[in-house]
Amino acid sequence: MHILLSNDDGYLAEGLTALADALRSYATITVVAPDRNRSAASNSLTLEMPLRATETENGFIKVDGTPTDCVHLAITGLLAKEPDMVFAGINHGGNLGDDVLYSGTVAAATEGRFLGLPAVAISLVGYPAVHFETAAHVAITLLQQLIKQPLPKDTILNVNVPDIPLNELKGYQATRLGQRHKSEPVITSTDPRGRLIYWVGPPGAEQDAGEGTDFYAINAGYVSVTPLQLDLTWYDRIQQVQAWLPTVNTQ
Amino acid sequence: MHILLSNDDGYLAEGLTALADALRSYATITVVAPDRNRSAASNSLTLEMPLRATETENGFIKVDGTPTDCVHLAITGLLAKEPDMVFAGINHGGNLGDDVLYSGTVAAATEGRFLGLPAVAISLVGYPAVHFETAAHVAITLLQQLIKQPLPKDTILNVNVPDIPLNELKGYQATRLGQRHKSEPVITSTDPRGRLIYWVGPPGAEQDAGEGTDFYAINAGYVSVTPLQLDLTWYDRIQQVQAWLPTVNTQ
Amino acid sequence: MHILLSNDDGYLAEGLTALADALRSYATITVVAPDRNRSAASNSLTLEMPLRATETENGFIKVDGTPTDCVHLAITGLLAKEPDMVFAGINHGGNLGDDVLYSGTVAAATEGRFLGLPAVAISLVGYPAVHFETAAHVAITLLQQLIKQPLPKDTILNVNVPDIPLNELKGYQATRLGQRHKSEPVITSTDPRGRLIYWVGPPGAEQDAGEGTDFYAINAGYVSVTPLQLDLTWYDRIQQVQAWLPTVNTQ
Amino acid sequence: MHILLSNDDGYLAEGLTALADALRSYATITVVAPDRNRSAASNSLTLEMPLRATETENGFIKVDGTPTDCVHLAITGLLAKEPDMVFAGINHGGNLGDDVLYSGTVAAATEGRFLGLPAVAISLVGYPAVHFETAAHVAITLLQQLIKQPLPKDTILNVNVPDIPLNELKGYQATRLGQRHKSEPVITSTDPRGRLIYWVGPPGAEQDAGEGTDFYAINAGYVSVTPLQLDLTWYDRIQQVQAWLPTVNTQ
Repeated sequence: MHILLSNDDGYLAEGLTALADALRSYATITVVAPDRNRSAASNSLTLEMPLRATETENGFIKVDGTPTDCVHLAITGLLAKEPDMVFAGINHGGNLGDDVLYSGTVAAATEGRFLGLPAVAISLVGYPAVHFETAAHVAITLLQQLIKQPLPKDTILNVNVPDIPLNELKGYQATRLGQRHKSEPVITSTDPRGRLIYWVGPPGAEQDAGEGTDFYAINAGYVSVTPLQLDLTWYDRIQQVQAWLPTVNTQ
Repeated sequence: MHILLSNDDGYLAEGLTALADALRSYATITVVAPDRNRSAASNSLTLEMPLRATETENGFIKVDGTPTDCVHLAITGLLAKEPDMVFAGINHGGNLGDDVLYSGTVAAATEGRFLGLPAVAISLVGYPAVHFETAAHVAITLLQQLIKQPLPKDTILNVNVPDIPLNELKGYQATRLGQRHKSEPVITSTDPRGRLIYWVGPPGAEQDAGEGTDFYAINAGYVSVTPLQLDLTWYDRIQQVQAWLPTVNTQ
Repeated sequence: MHILLSNDDGYLAEGLTALADALRSYATITVVAPDRNRSAASNSLTLEMPLRATETENGFIKVDGTPTDCVHLAITGLLAKEPDMVFAGINHGGNLGDDVLYSGTVAAATEGRFLGLPAVAISLVGYPAVHFETAAHVAITLLQQLIKQPLPKDTILNVNVPDIPLNELKGYQATRLGQRHKSEPVITSTDPRGRLIYWVGPPGAEQDAGEGTDFYAINAGYVSVTPLQLDLTWYDRIQQVQAWLPTVNTQ
Repeated sequence: MHILLSNDDGYLAEGLTALADALRSYATITVVAPDRNRSAASNSLTLEMPLRATETENGFIKVDGTPTDCVHLAITGLLAKEPDMVFAGINHGGNLGDDVLYSGTVAAATEGRFLGLPAVAISLVGYPAVHFETAAHVAITLLQQLIKQPLPKDTILNVNVPDIPLNELKGYQATRLGQRHKSEPVITSTDPRGRLIYWVGPPGAEQDAGEGTDFYAINAGYVSVTPLQLDLTWYDRIQQVQAWLPTVNTQ
């Protein structure tokens, strides 16, 4: 078993090291991760500029690109041997509800969708995140379970772990993504030269966080495991849109 | 009607100007777009650095950030009056199948999901794209139809237009997203100092491009209109994952 | 006569347009300038990444690099015909005293040192700069004088123009660079997530601004013209250092 | 004695570690260095964006800015106690002749010019550089000499060390900067999408490399020590320029 690891907090992040140390005993691991913090990079790809990959002292490979660049490179030619699956994380902070649209960690897992086994994104829901050993244990548990009882290879699991000691963990729940309210307002400020600058505000509060959601599981002390799919088509709307579309319109 | 326009090719792109010129007669428009090419930026958000917004000579507002930053800023405080909807594009090149995961144009539309009307991403499927007047006509047609007969406000339409003269257009089709094969291999090269560099390779060829897909519609000369949803949860898999999850696992 | 124009405020800056419009009647001009603001770029060169050069609507060439990159590219192969000299500016704000070490405008002129005629950096000392027509007139005057009565080709002129109407200008003074005090303290702040950030503080106040300096000329309403040389060797110190150097030292 | 260390190859560079390890026994050292390779950054300062400073595992402070930003921050407020002098390096590769105009290492030393003792930039002239222990020995020797017999505080020493074993070193020479020919032509290439890209070419060959220059010393196996000054005024030309300047010119 050969697992590719990546993240969006950069190759020096504690969460990545914790994940590498955890999985090393169960599989061959290769780490290809951004050379610096690329949180909220989503699935962005670097097309205009070349990328450089450098082996670091601890045997990781750092890339001057996004999480998606890292996994993309790794599975399209950088590595001599294609990995079997991707584990991304352990993210410093949760990736819950709408967060997954922006998350570089989830994007790294997503980019591993063409491999032979499920992809896993794993995040520790603390600010700052502390109990990486809990998340590392969860990573091992899920890996062992994946080996013992494989899931379909097109599965992507978005895993969030409450930031509590392992012995306080209540268990695992399969969840759906909740939803956040619209983000908080942009934060306006001025630079020292008196010019206006804007900071993106914090994510919105939980809007749909009821039973069954990832928010709910985390708040109750459970590991939240959400199966993701990447087809954004809204199938139930296709007929409606077809009926709505102009018919004689091109002249 | 107040429409926010953005794109990922940058505020100087011909496609954005074409879109602005087209919609100006039908609505109040405000353009907030990246200060340079940000193709493949996906939903990436700039959290670590502040953003600057500058009004340009032609009345557009340029932002030194991603498409998502642009729309995010615009709807969370930059604009005095919140727009009713977002039109993103006209993208230079198609956003078909898996492309939507990486597209900055689609991400700009996505970020408008909290507004009162549907969001529309519009792309011209040519390399290089030529017939912007065709796509502009399509934009006007869809806007008029949205005004006459509104769709649910949480609708996001991913519109792709064949790069042909308007009078050759066959009509409109509501489609699902097709799928591409895995991307082409990374392209390895060296810089003038002899060091290895990597370029992300081209997207994969069409894999699922059968009837009903966006690929199929475009290839047949139709405008493809795919309704998108943003909930990545794979609902059909939740039970399976729940059954699969470890039960006694935290000790 | 073929003049290469560049600047560090970016190809859209009012000062660059003013300079281009002024010199166009007296010479063939080619503008190669950064695609965005690169103030304080000094002589930095982009070695790790490739550069792209794009012709803009108004016939300028923009480059996604520093001022030095722009002039470097222009004179080492981008242009079919090598220019005779470089004019850089009109900079928005002065380049006085120690400023020249950091200035991208002066660096652009510096990079033109291998051409057949003197290089000129021209800056308008106002915050914000207003009277570009005054500086444009100065540029024309100096160009005409350079044509009529050439200076040695290794001359680099650092020209600063008071931001006043042309008819208030007192004349021209050949000056030496003054000196500033140490910069003002760094400005400490926090981002919206509570983390420390630092902004480089303003330049120091004038320390050596006595008669003969560029500061003095500007304050008195004169155009300041400082001949620059690029050899940083402190010749008067070589003997002292030689005497000071360890003699038996390598064992 | 409190020495500030910086470089332009980034905080992880072998040369910086070698310098820190060498000087640690002779002084209190604080390292503030760029978070990545910033070669050829010259004296560029980051004015448009804030900077972040982070302590690393080995006790260094990394900054997401240029070498000049690093030293600027350090001496204008980041450090509780102002250092006495700056040592920059050990640069991977030489900084000879015209190189000093572009060098981030020399710029870091330059930025320390307001401190109480001389600033030293030290570079190892090898491609790739190998004998860091030789350069480290030179750094110690010069530091000890500076302590024993101080030079004027406004001295900046540009030190280049031949990349040879210590016992092959011939000695030290006080030198002037040599000069290079114009740079090699820009290298034209295409990206995988067929668009033109340009790489800055290599520096020009030695033009003025005669006796007394830094090039000459290095080629002969000596450590080259060039005293630098930062006043770019070409004093010998002021009279000539004054005579040349237009006199009746403002009407």
